[in-house]
Amino acid sequence: MENTSAPAIDFARHDRIRPIRWTGQSLELLDQRRLPFEVEYLACADSDEVAAAIHALAVRGAPAIGISAAWGAVLAAREADAADGATALAQIEPALQRLNAARPTAVNLAWALARMRRALAGAGDDWRDVLEREARAIETEDLAANRRMGELGAGLIEPGSGVLTHCNTGSLATAGFGTALGVIRAGVALGRIDKVFADETRPWMQGSRLTVWELQQDGIDATLIADAAASHLMKDGQVDWVVVGADRICANGDVANKIGTYQLAISARHHGRKFMVVAPSSTVDMDTASGDLIEIEERDQAELLGVAGSRIVAEGIRAWNPVFDVTPATLIDAIVTEKGIVERPDEASMRAMFGR
Amino acid sequence: MENTSAPAIDFARHDRIRPIRWTGQSLELLDQRRLPFEVEYLACADSDEVAAAIHALAVRGAPAIGISAAWGAVLAAREADAADGATALAQIEPALQRLNAARPTAVNLAWALARMRRALAGAGDDWRDVLEREARAIETEDLAANRRMGELGAGLIEPGSGVLTHCNTGSLATAGFGTALGVIRAGVALGRIDKVFADETRPWMQGSRLTVWELQQDGIDATLIADAAASHLMKDGQVDWVVVGADRICANGDVANKIGTYQLAISARHHGRKFMVVAPSSTVDMDTASGDLIEIEERDQAELLGVAGSRIVAEGIRAWNPVFDVTPATLIDAIVTEKGIVERPDEASMRAMFGR
Repeated sequence: MENTSAPAIDFARHDRIRPIRWTGQSLELLDQRRLPFEVEYLACADSDEVAAAIHALAVRGAPAIGISAAWGAVLAAREADAADGATALAQIEPALQRLNAARPTAVNLAWALARMRRALAGAGDDWRDVLEREARAIETEDLAANRRMGELGAGLIEPGSGVLTHCNTGSLATAGFGTALGVIRAGVALGRIDKVFADETRPWMQGSRLTVWELQQDGIDATLIADAAASHLMKDGQVDWVVVGADRICANGDVANKIGTYQLAISARHHGRKFMVVAPSSTVDMDTASGDLIEIEERDQAELLGVAGSRIVAEGIRAWNPVFDVTPATLIDAIVTEKGIVERPDEASMRAMFGR
Repeated sequence: MENTSAPAIDFARHDRIRPIRWTGQSLELLDQRRLPFEVEYLACADSDEVAAAIHALAVRGAPAIGISAAWGAVLAAREADAADGATALAQIEPALQRLNAARPTAVNLAWALARMRRALAGAGDDWRDVLEREARAIETEDLAANRRMGELGAGLIEPGSGVLTHCNTGSLATAGFGTALGVIRAGVALGRIDKVFADETRPWMQGSRLTVWELQQDGIDATLIADAAASHLMKDGQVDWVVVGADRICANGDVANKIGTYQLAISARHHGRKFMVVAPSSTVDMDTASGDLIEIEERDQAELLGVAGSRIVAEGIRAWNPVFDVTPATLIDAIVTEKGIVERPDEASMRAMFGR
C-alpha cells in the first residue's frame, strides 16, 4: 500500500489515531463528542446502535460515516438467518435503510451501503464472510486513497506555503490520515507547508476540539482562529491555500461541505488565494447534476443556543442551523481524489475523470 | 430631541435598556459579561475602576466606551483639588491616560477624553460643573445621533427587506437605541425590514448573548445564525442589507469593526447585497488616512480556547485572536452618521461630509 514515489512521507507515523475499530464482534467508535479531553470508545453491538452513533455525531466525517455504516451492515447481518446473500439482503434491508437515514448530506453513507448491498446480493452461502471482507475493503481502500490524495494534493502546494483548513477532515473523519488534513500532513512532511491554520467551525467546534488536537498528536504546529477571522488572515497574506474536505461532490464540480466552506471559497477568490477540495472518489456523486439539488441538513437549533453544554442565548430565541453549504465549482481551483486531480472543475472535466 | 419627520418611530419604546447610569456619585455599568441571564450593574467608584471595566468588557461598544470614559473623567476629577480647569486637568491627566489605554481600537474613547480635556482646559472655578455637563452632553448627543441615524439608515432600506447584523451595536453599545441596531429598530418600526438575522460573533458571542436579547426586549423577532453561515444565508436570498457598526472610520472610508465584518462585506459584494456602516461622527477619524494605519487589538487567546468558561481546546494549542478587522471603503455602499449619509465612500466624499 505504501507509495514509493514520495519516500519522505512516513505514513506509519500518522497511524496513531484510529476512529473505527472492528473487534470481530462489535464496532468500537472513538467518541468524538468527548474529544479532546477524553479518548473513549463507544461500543456498538448492533446496526441500530451504529445508526444512533452516526446521528449523534459520535462518529462524523463523510468517509468515516461510510465505513461505520459498512460495519453496521455486518452487524445487521448477525441477525439474519439465510442460505444465500440475496435472502440475507432482503432480511437486513430495513436495518440498512435505518443506517442510510442517520445523516442526509454525506454521499459516502449511501455509497458504502450500496456497495455492501451489491456484495451481498451476489454472494452464496459464504455471504457472511463476503460482507465482512467488503467492509474491511472499504476501510482499507479509504486509507490508501487518503495517502494517495495526500501526495497529490501536497504536490499542488508551493514550498513555504501557509494553509487554512475548516472542520475536521483527518484520521478522525476517515479510516486514517485524512482527506484535506492528509494533504496538510503530506505537505508538512514534504516541507511544502510552513504554517497551518484551523478555524473553530461553529457550532460543533470540530476545528477547536478535533483538528488542532489531531495535528498535535502528529507534532504538527497549528494555530486556531475564529471562523470570522479567516478573511482577515487571508488579507494578512498568511494563507496560500484553503484546503477542505467534502460531503458530496456533484457532476458539475459543486461541493457540499461543512457550513462555512462556501464563505472561505468566496474569500479565497477575493484575495487571489487558492481553494482545494480533497475527497475520495466515493464522495463524487455523478447522479447529482449540481449543488442546487443537494438536500442541506439542518440540525437542532440547540447547537447554536449553547456551547459546551451551557446555554448562552436567552430563552425564546430562534436559531437557524444549516450544517452544510454548497461551494460552486467556479470558486474551486482543484478537486483532489485518489483517481487524480480535477483542476478548475466543470461538467466536462468531472466527466473526464469520473465517467458518465 | 424627538425628530418629528418620522412620527412612526416611537423612540421611547426603545429606551428600556440603559447600559450606563450616572448616580451623581458613581458610574453604574450594566455588566455585559453576565447578560443575558443576569441583569446586574457594576458600580465604579473611581476612574481606574471605569478603565478596568472597559478593559474587561463589562462595558463595550465604541460609543458606550467613550461615554463611560467621559464619566470616568468626572470621577477622576473628584480626586483633584484645583482653583481652575487647567490646573485640574494637569492633576487628572495620568488618570485620563489610563482610561485612554483601556482599549486601543475604538476612536470614540480618545475622542470623548479629548472633548473632556478641552472643556476642562477652558473652565474657571466652576470646572467641576463644566466637566459633568460635558459628560452628560456626550451621552445625550449620542442618543440623539443614534435616533437620527436610525431614520437615515432605515430610509436606504427597501420595504420588505431582510437584514443581517454582526456583533452588538444596540442600546448596550451606546447611550441608547444603537447605531446599526438603531437602523434595524427604525427599519422594523417603519415597516421596511421584515426579517432580522444576527450572527453569533465569536469569540465573545455578542450576537448570541446581547443582540438577540436586546431585540427580544423590544419585541423584534430575530434569528441567530453561526458566523460561518452568513454567506449561505445570502445565497439563499434572505439578506438585502448587511448593517454593522464601526470602531473607527478612516479618512478614505475604510472601517475598523469587530472581527468578521470584513468577511461579511466580501460576501455581500459577491452576492450583490448591500453593506451599510452606521456610526456617529465621533467614530470618524479624519487623522487616520486609511485602514492600514489602524492598530488592530489582539485579545487573550484564552477567548478562543474555551467557551462559556469551559475549556474546549487541548492543552498546548495556540490561537490567534484579533478582535477587529478593516473593511475597505470599496466594499461599503453607505456610511450613515448623524451628519448624513456617505454613499460609496472615498476620500473626496468623506472630506465633503466631515471636513479637512
